[in-house]
Amino acid sequence: MRTVAVTKIGSLSDPDDATRGRVGVVDFPDQVLGPEDVRIRVAYSAICGSDPHIAEGFFGVDVPIGLGHELSGVIEALGAQAHRNGLRVGDRVAGNFLRFCGTCRACQRGRQQFCSGIQDYNRPGMAETVTWHESQVYVLPESVSLLKGCLLEPTSVAVRIADKSNLRVGDRVAICGGGPIGQLALQVMKMHGATSLTMIEPIAERREIALRRGAEHVIDPLSQDQDAQADAITEGHGFDVVIDASGSTRAVQGLLRIAAKGATVIYGAMYPHDFEMPLNLTDYLYLKELTLTGVFVSPYAFPRAVQILPHLDVDELTRAVFPLEEAVEAFAAHVSGAHPKVVIRCNDVDVQEGAR
Amino acid sequence: MRTVAVTKIGSLSDPDDATRGRVGVVDFPDQVLGPEDVRIRVAYSAICGSDPHIAEGFFGVDVPIGLGHELSGVIEALGAQAHRNGLRVGDRVAGNFLRFCGTCRACQRGRQQFCSGIQDYNRPGMAETVTWHESQVYVLPESVSLLKGCLLEPTSVAVRIADKSNLRVGDRVAICGGGPIGQLALQVMKMHGATSLTMIEPIAERREIALRRGAEHVIDPLSQDQDAQADAITEGHGFDVVIDASGSTRAVQGLLRIAAKGATVIYGAMYPHDFEMPLNLTDYLYLKELTLTGVFVSPYAFPRAVQILPHLDVDELTRAVFPLEEAVEAFAAHVSGAHPKVVIRCNDVDVQEGAR
Amino acid sequence: MRTVAVTKIGSLSDPDDATRGRVGVVDFPDQVLGPEDVRIRVAYSAICGSDPHIAEGFFGVDVPIGLGHELSGVIEALGAQAHRNGLRVGDRVAGNFLRFCGTCRACQRGRQQFCSGIQDYNRPGMAETVTWHESQVYVLPESVSLLKGCLLEPTSVAVRIADKSNLRVGDRVAICGGGPIGQLALQVMKMHGATSLTMIEPIAERREIALRRGAEHVIDPLSQDQDAQADAITEGHGFDVVIDASGSTRAVQGLLRIAAKGATVIYGAMYPHDFEMPLNLTDYLYLKELTLTGVFVSPYAFPRAVQILPHLDVDELTRAVFPLEEAVEAFAAHVSGAHPKVVIRCNDVDVQEGAR
Amino acid sequence: MRTVAVTKIGSLSDPDDATRGRVGVVDFPDQVLGPEDVRIRVAYSAICGSDPHIAEGFFGVDVPIGLGHELSGVIEALGAQAHRNGLRVGDRVAGNFLRFCGTCRACQRGRQQFCSGIQDYNRPGMAETVTWHESQVYVLPESVSLLKGCLLEPTSVAVRIADKSNLRVGDRVAICGGGPIGQLALQVMKMHGATSLTMIEPIAERREIALRRGAEHVIDPLSQDQDAQADAITEGHGFDVVIDASGSTRAVQGLLRIAAKGATVIYGAMYPHDFEMPLNLTDYLYLKELTLTGVFVSPYAFPRAVQILPHLDVDELTRAVFPLEEAVEAFAAHVSGAHPKVVIRCNDVDVQEGAR
Repeated sequence: MRTVAVTKIGSLSDPDDATRGRVGVVDFPDQVLGPEDVRIRVAYSAICGSDPHIAEGFFGVDVPIGLGHELSGVIEALGAQAHRNGLRVGDRVAGNFLRFCGTCRACQRGRQQFCSGIQDYNRPGMAETVTWHESQVYVLPESVSLLKGCLLEPTSVAVRIADKSNLRVGDRVAICGGGPIGQLALQVMKMHGATSLTMIEPIAERREIALRRGAEHVIDPLSQDQDAQADAITEGHGFDVVIDASGSTRAVQGLLRIAAKGATVIYGAMYPHDFEMPLNLTDYLYLKELTLTGVFVSPYAFPRAVQILPHLDVDELTRAVFPLEEAVEAFAAHVSGAHPKVVIRCNDVDVQEGAR
Repeated sequence: MRTVAVTKIGSLSDPDDATRGRVGVVDFPDQVLGPEDVRIRVAYSAICGSDPHIAEGFFGVDVPIGLGHELSGVIEALGAQAHRNGLRVGDRVAGNFLRFCGTCRACQRGRQQFCSGIQDYNRPGMAETVTWHESQVYVLPESVSLLKGCLLEPTSVAVRIADKSNLRVGDRVAICGGGPIGQLALQVMKMHGATSLTMIEPIAERREIALRRGAEHVIDPLSQDQDAQADAITEGHGFDVVIDASGSTRAVQGLLRIAAKGATVIYGAMYPHDFEMPLNLTDYLYLKELTLTGVFVSPYAFPRAVQILPHLDVDELTRAVFPLEEAVEAFAAHVSGAHPKVVIRCNDVDVQEGAR
Repeated sequence: MRTVAVTKIGSLSDPDDATRGRVGVVDFPDQVLGPEDVRIRVAYSAICGSDPHIAEGFFGVDVPIGLGHELSGVIEALGAQAHRNGLRVGDRVAGNFLRFCGTCRACQRGRQQFCSGIQDYNRPGMAETVTWHESQVYVLPESVSLLKGCLLEPTSVAVRIADKSNLRVGDRVAICGGGPIGQLALQVMKMHGATSLTMIEPIAERREIALRRGAEHVIDPLSQDQDAQADAITEGHGFDVVIDASGSTRAVQGLLRIAAKGATVIYGAMYPHDFEMPLNLTDYLYLKELTLTGVFVSPYAFPRAVQILPHLDVDELTRAVFPLEEAVEAFAAHVSGAHPKVVIRCNDVDVQEGAR
Repeated sequence: MRTVAVTKIGSLSDPDDATRGRVGVVDFPDQVLGPEDVRIRVAYSAICGSDPHIAEGFFGVDVPIGLGHELSGVIEALGAQAHRNGLRVGDRVAGNFLRFCGTCRACQRGRQQFCSGIQDYNRPGMAETVTWHESQVYVLPESVSLLKGCLLEPTSVAVRIADKSNLRVGDRVAICGGGPIGQLALQVMKMHGATSLTMIEPIAERREIALRRGAEHVIDPLSQDQDAQADAITEGHGFDVVIDASGSTRAVQGLLRIAAKGATVIYGAMYPHDFEMPLNLTDYLYLKELTLTGVFVSPYAFPRAVQILPHLDVDELTRAVFPLEEAVEAFAAHVSGAHPKVVIRCNDVDVQEGAR
């Protein structure tokens, strides 16, 4: 089965051809359909900001490493016992690339994100089909197209960020980083009751997307005085919730300054493996009583992400679509930064819209 | 000072002229300006759904009882020490008719709503001026008119309802009762991340307001099967949050049925003094694990209500405006139900917009 | 396999022999050991306060109905894939009679208590062996005997009650009902930071157990003025958390009065199917802003119940032990109320203590 | 009025006599008794771990700086309006050296810890009398002696730490640092439901106090492998709550390693002004999803600290008592580390026990 995969470990943006990482379309064995499993013919599979990290070997170095975990499609087969949630062949679906087993100590404690079997069903979804456990699969609402539906997974991350933000309706919120997670978090936080909502982002085009999608203010951290801007926006109070979706080592420390006393600061991106942010304990944890936390994956968030998706406007995130055979070009487009999001269409002929 | 007051205890809608309660414009003594106090020339003061309850003697029977606690105005004088929050003469303001003392045991525990001195500064605001403690006064955002500003207090109640709802972004929400609190709660819950948002209301005009202001569904409990509708809207799951803003003894019990397992049900209105709702402990607290709670007043909510007010559309709630001298007609209009909200303009010549 | 079961529907305390329900030892088919399952040779299985409700047909009327869900034992066989949590043959264990599937919509939302498959593995454990899914099984700490270990399940209920209590350390707490759940809840709430801890219970012996196990005060609701006592104990504030573990329809309403403003009241017992408690919405939800809730089962609580069990003193709850063949006498003893808890030893020769 | 004060800025443990900071007994003007104020004849005033920081100029350098904020005493005068909480002359009391105004924006938001007037009533209490606002004063329970009562303030800090810990009953807890706050936090967390409770402390005597007062385990970070010990104690899970009460820059980073996935880590001490802890965002916020926070002061905690104090055993913290005139010796004893806590008796003849 044709599957997009990392074929050589290395940075995808390395200018040196000899050391640059590579992505290609590889033939992978078919995935077995277990009794509780669901086979999905994949319609769309989006490139995630973490994919280049995978290419760099963040999660392992044995190539080929199959890619693709933000996907939508149509059910084409169900295992004999995959009937708990009423799924049917032909259903238009998306879902969670991770399965939470429900049995391990973490699942028993209500912390599925640390499930010991979290990788058991993490199969490459930038492929013709993907086979998941029934518990990973969600039917898309009628009003959500398959193209939009491939954003269910990153939407669940934005929902989890909202869950961890402890936001009270009306709180002031800033988001740093206008990539896909930042833009989705912006819309979800807007929808969750954020006020004085501010996007911090150096790229003008991404600031403009944010303004169209609900930001009340934007800050260009390169040309503007971020602290002064934050002060003006919040009347000197600072932001009650600050979210980093940039992963930028240059940005993370400044977010502590623009946070209000008592604020929650969420580091919601991936950072270089060995990067250590200097954290002044007196200024930020003692005097300001900030709460710092992060987001690994998104347990307990998918059913609500399904409810939320119809309310989001993802036009700018679904404009760049490449067919599966042009995966190399798609990743090049992703690395170029020309598009906030790049999507791969995984079947030549678009899968038929299903029964629901 | 001219002040609208209950002058005779009784139901304002009593058809019998002899026993009907009465409201009139009475001369009240001027309120003393203490060192930490703020005198506000009142621009607008809205009639609250609780005012008829006051007329019926809910909080006492010694007439005259001055009315008015949803108001906006312009600061005309400040006590010598009322300088903690930067207030200035000329500021356009609104606020909380209750003062939380900060000293009593309830305030010390973080439960201002039970402040033992909560009534100390509860002065009639349907008057030419009102004098409050500095802690009760909030400057209105520039974009909020004085007319809209008189809705800050009911907005704070909607914020408190949201605070107590334990809503997670994307949860399904139903609101029963399309009066002012119900309509404001609808907008605030929408803004807080409610989905499948449903207004339950027998009056068609109020259902239409709800649909214009963000409801995705409406239910007419008189002509429709409420349970079946709720089932269809929520795909059989029920609503994660159910809010009663109707105060209707006929409505309250049915809300337990349309609540999802594990849901929060908020009784956010006033009910007849001696009304007891039959609560099946097995069905609702044991098997469904519902959480039931209510809202008395709105502590800790005003700063966020100020942030939220610019995001609300209150056109339908500010259309019926009567001058102070027509207070009797205003209350008659309120009782008639012809308008979702009736506002009294408390100074003949509108107060000047202030410095901010 | 010998199994204790309801053999005739009816009240176990019905004086009329003709209509009284009956319990007996019946031969049940062996339970199949699936690949993720664990077979436990049962050491002890305790009679639960809900067992008589089962005899009355609360959950169904098709006899025989196998009983027993509070049990301990030793693993005697493991399915081929039951290796996720490191269980081994010979381990001394206890656990949850309910399996949470991890797949259904409720599990996906973080509300395992409403799992659609919750009954799939609910097998009678008052038997020679019981076969559970791996996810239901917990190894007992070394310091916990098998006899004490059969109380892990009711301890998990007390933990869940604590979880839902929203207790802040130092809050005042009252518990109504000194049966097994009430006594365990008393100890767990004591351990959780309850102060002014009060047991309300008409039976003197049970009040004395409470005093020995951490209650600071006791109230006899029959001979004392409960409101006056509560007032004296709490200096007029009322209790911040009130827990009903009595299931008494006469007791439940009075608990609303002794609750502090803003308190949480947990109805943590089973009540007659059709019993409706009259709830004055104005007094309790509006003016006092109480939060009422209940407890069905105990998700997410077992790992912590295992941690807590060594800290509890359950001597009085493990004194009445009957062999399996005397199950009829054991239930008679339970119904008589002579012992706060009755335990059945399910294997003639006590199972050997395991490897851990 | 005789008052203990910093008379020269500098480290109290500086071996160089020329640059060492100094403390002495200085004559301070009497504090005015305002209408809502309470004058307390001070019985005991304890030296706090933050006092040497004050001597070093952490909060200002204008000497003399009066000291003393952990105190108990007897009311000797009440302002004319200080009647809200029923205080009477002769009451045995303790309290909060900070007044929360109830008026500023922080107080209005429910974040008293950031009250803009927090220092208005912060008067030196290591003195013959101290005058506080009524809201700062709490009557001691009968069973609490004045000597023990001077620990109400540090107890409130331990309560606040518990409040911010998000502990669920049964969670595993470690505390780093066996000074007064660490020991009180140990007892309060024990009382709040901590299990596997572990004290990390290099001084043997302090580890022994911890074991006597409820620690189940101790770790000597100098002679033992902290990570291996934590692993053994928690069966490889790590601690669900980790509290630093050491203020040690060498200790703080290692606490991130022994925290469980999803744990809360509270930095509950003071740290050198410019110390920055290197925080690996990937390891601790992304992969482990830790929550980091701190504690500045203890709002909303005093009423519960009063409830808790009778349950604590503070023998080891109240053994070293010096009269006011020997304040220099008392501080020398504090700096020497010979006692976990040093207390100053502020009136030659002990104040009489009051009316309650």
